Amino acid sequence: MGHPEAYSLLRCGSWLSFVARKILLSRSRIITKTVFVMPELAPVLDHLDKSLDQSLERLFTLLRLKSISTDPAFADECRKAAEWLVEDLRSIGFEASVRDTQGHPMVVAHHDGDGPHILFYGHYDVQPVDPLDLWDADPFAPALAERDGHKVICGRGSADDKGQLMTFVEACRAYKAVHGKLPCKVTILFEGEEESGSPSLKPFLEANAEELKADFALVCDTGMWDRATPAISTALRGLVGEEVTVKAANRDLHSGEFGGAAANPIRILARILADIHDENGRVTIPGFYDGVEETPSQILKSWETLGLTPEKFLGPIGLSEPAGEKGRSILELVWARPTAEFNGISGGYTGKGFKTVIAAEASAKVSFRLVHSQDPDKIRAAFREFVKARIPTDCSVEFAKHGGSPAIQLAYDSPFLSKAQAALTDEWPNPAVMTAMGGSIPIVGDFQKMLGMESLLVGFGLPDDRVHSPNEKYDLASFHKGQRSWVRILDALAK
Amino acid sequence: MGHPEAYSLLRCGSWLSFVARKILLSRSRIITKTVFVMPELAPVLDHLDKSLDQSLERLFTLLRLKSISTDPAFADECRKAAEWLVEDLRSIGFEASVRDTQGHPMVVAHHDGDGPHILFYGHYDVQPVDPLDLWDADPFAPALAERDGHKVICGRGSADDKGQLMTFVEACRAYKAVHGKLPCKVTILFEGEEESGSPSLKPFLEANAEELKADFALVCDTGMWDRATPAISTALRGLVGEEVTVKAANRDLHSGEFGGAAANPIRILARILADIHDENGRVTIPGFYDGVEETPSQILKSWETLGLTPEKFLGPIGLSEPAGEKGRSILELVWARPTAEFNGISGGYTGKGFKTVIAAEASAKVSFRLVHSQDPDKIRAAFREFVKARIPTDCSVEFAKHGGSPAIQLAYDSPFLSKAQAALTDEWPNPAVMTAMGGSIPIVGDFQKMLGMESLLVGFGLPDDRVHSPNEKYDLASFHKGQRSWVRILDALAK
Repeated sequence: MGHPEAYSLLRCGSWLSFVARKILLSRSRIITKTVFVMPELAPVLDHLDKSLDQSLERLFTLLRLKSISTDPAFADECRKAAEWLVEDLRSIGFEASVRDTQGHPMVVAHHDGDGPHILFYGHYDVQPVDPLDLWDADPFAPALAERDGHKVICGRGSADDKGQLMTFVEACRAYKAVHGKLPCKVTILFEGEEESGSPSLKPFLEANAEELKADFALVCDTGMWDRATPAISTALRGLVGEEVTVKAANRDLHSGEFGGAAANPIRILARILADIHDENGRVTIPGFYDGVEETPSQILKSWETLGLTPEKFLGPIGLSEPAGEKGRSILELVWARPTAEFNGISGGYTGKGFKTVIAAEASAKVSFRLVHSQDPDKIRAAFREFVKARIPTDCSVEFAKHGGSPAIQLAYDSPFLSKAQAALTDEWPNPAVMTAMGGSIPIVGDFQKMLGMESLLVGFGLPDDRVHSPNEKYDLASFHKGQRSWVRILDALAK
Repeated sequence: MGHPEAYSLLRCGSWLSFVARKILLSRSRIITKTVFVMPELAPVLDHLDKSLDQSLERLFTLLRLKSISTDPAFADECRKAAEWLVEDLRSIGFEASVRDTQGHPMVVAHHDGDGPHILFYGHYDVQPVDPLDLWDADPFAPALAERDGHKVICGRGSADDKGQLMTFVEACRAYKAVHGKLPCKVTILFEGEEESGSPSLKPFLEANAEELKADFALVCDTGMWDRATPAISTALRGLVGEEVTVKAANRDLHSGEFGGAAANPIRILARILADIHDENGRVTIPGFYDGVEETPSQILKSWETLGLTPEKFLGPIGLSEPAGEKGRSILELVWARPTAEFNGISGGYTGKGFKTVIAAEASAKVSFRLVHSQDPDKIRAAFREFVKARIPTDCSVEFAKHGGSPAIQLAYDSPFLSKAQAALTDEWPNPAVMTAMGGSIPIVGDFQKMLGMESLLVGFGLPDDRVHSPNEKYDLASFHKGQRSWVRILDALAK
């Protein structure tokens, strides 16, 4: 079948090695790269190339199931998706089962292997499809299409996360077909509630910790840096959320009558928020930077090679000046530095026109993104002290806690990481980059806390996949080369 | 009829003077004071005392008319009130007429006199009465009652402003009855739209400037300092209202993805607001204090004698610490100092729970109370410059103008003022105090701007009158001694 990125494998010399000359046609350039392919791999990759049509058919079957987890009307479709996956995994040789929870079922599957034990995580549930009229086609009638010069798989769940999890299933299928075994011991966990807050996940991990514990986890729900550059997320920022309400007078006041004499909670709150950053964008809360490490210079250098200028990152959102700590790159700011952000503020009269009122109270929602070993509890306590010190004696303050999770940071010198990175680099035009994520992915924290297991986050999504939106798609290249990537990674991890 | 404040007039000696020994029983003390009453006055005051029942009947007739100006359903009642007032004024000898406007009519009346020409202003329209179930009695069935130890007139409009304007009408009626003339040339203007924004007032003043222009105005829509202390408001703070909207990214952002790199408009806005006051509560906007004068020390001293401690002023609203400029008394802060207040703020997610969003924009409503000769246009321009200087180059700011009016300050050495003050001091237990008002009364500015006329604000309302609220009342003493006060004032002004 046709493919936007044409490449060919050329046998050169012996059975011991292949030279793969890959020509990748991206929109802007032609990349030619020469890599050596180990003999175990070559026939598996070949098998994947030849069976792409069949793997697409399987994915389409899964995509046709309307497994919207947040809407109880689709509970049956969720179960059907779980059952279909179990059947498919059994056909490969997995010992697989649908596992009931209080909500939608989990899929758990096991396969023996000689190498390390890995746990692969994905989710079969999808987002709702509203507003339906913004879709170009039925979201549950998957099809191939051409979009912006790329061949893509269209449909809800194609990228998030059915297409992604099937890359791994297809990699296992091909390896098993060619070699009759898998290179690693593999446990698979497919969740059916990721898009609706994962209410059953923690209880399930707790109840089945023994069964699910592996040497490390592969979490496939993320993306590439760009079409040519695979990525491994090794860090996730943590989060502390706080709602702070400053209370002054016991009722709203007329600013003519009381203005100039009575405390104004908006003024007090503005002063507190303004005090949180210094003129260099650093957070001034005492102890805030405890546990924050400087990022290794080689990592910073690799990020520099990605060429993400402030213009490229901020341009699309209409900005140009990095607003965080001065003297640090955009990627360092969003991946490796903690922040204090103000997510909401309200107080007084906010309707149309004007009302000369002095409000009784004003409140703000404040969040902190954490990195490395910053302690969420200590940050929360330090913030509250910082605020209390700025409340006049005749006013008061109330706090509401909104979530707190530490950051996740995989050691940059982990052998799993370097193997996976080399394997991805072999498959794609550009070397794999170790990235981080500015936001949180709770499952990674849960694996670490509850199963004592680190995670590698590898995925093949692209920024234009429109996940959670109408017209979701997954590049055919993501699906195909994703399968090939997993074969390479499994093979590398086994060595 | 019974009266909570018993007093008696004792004739002593000659026809040329009376010694009036007034015993006023207030809740906390008995005050005995000796004053001389001029011979023109004594019979008029006597007449008022004797005709209190009749004057009450007239007021009750007016109070029964449901002249709610904001609700078109009561337009007929508004007109009836105007017509009743015209008839009543004609019965005294005024040349009075109902004057149509685009809205509810004005009442204009003229009476000759030898003294200066004064314009008396009041309004016959009243506030709506919702919520009706919070009233102890029908708001339009006026009655006498006892409340908190004081005899009061209950009903909508009793204090605001029908009861007040009738104190002046009754004073004129009594003077005319006794002396066959009035001591001053009097023009009366009663408005019917004060409670609904006075839309017809400016056009009416403009169209009838020649007819309405007097030597100065008496505006009767304010209150006493307390039950024993009459007040003349000589200053009104001006007002500049601004709405400022800080715009950053072109859409709301995920704080995980962009936090630490993208500008946060709430942070920018908080910094701007925090910068507006220094640590001593002074406004830092350059040029803000241009035109602000220090209040004469004798005025500050007279305010001190009122004993308004921070505890007394702020205690009822649950506060204790003055929040304005340090080193100034409460009364100076609210009467004679300019302010910057934040009346509303909004941005980002303000609903329940939490959303890790970086908002595209945030906005605040900011107002400045002005004193003396501060220029509203200059203040507005200076504020905008102050804000713009704090907007990052890749962000923008928009302003919306909400009203601007200069402060009003009557010269403390005006002869009208000292005469009115002496007259009030003769009537009440405590000397009349020259107060100011923290808020604005547009009519005073209009008289000044459009008719070139200063205003004395004299009224007999009390803080517990519940104007605009259910169970509005007017103390019977306010009504009765208010009439007597106007007789004294008219007499004093004529001299």
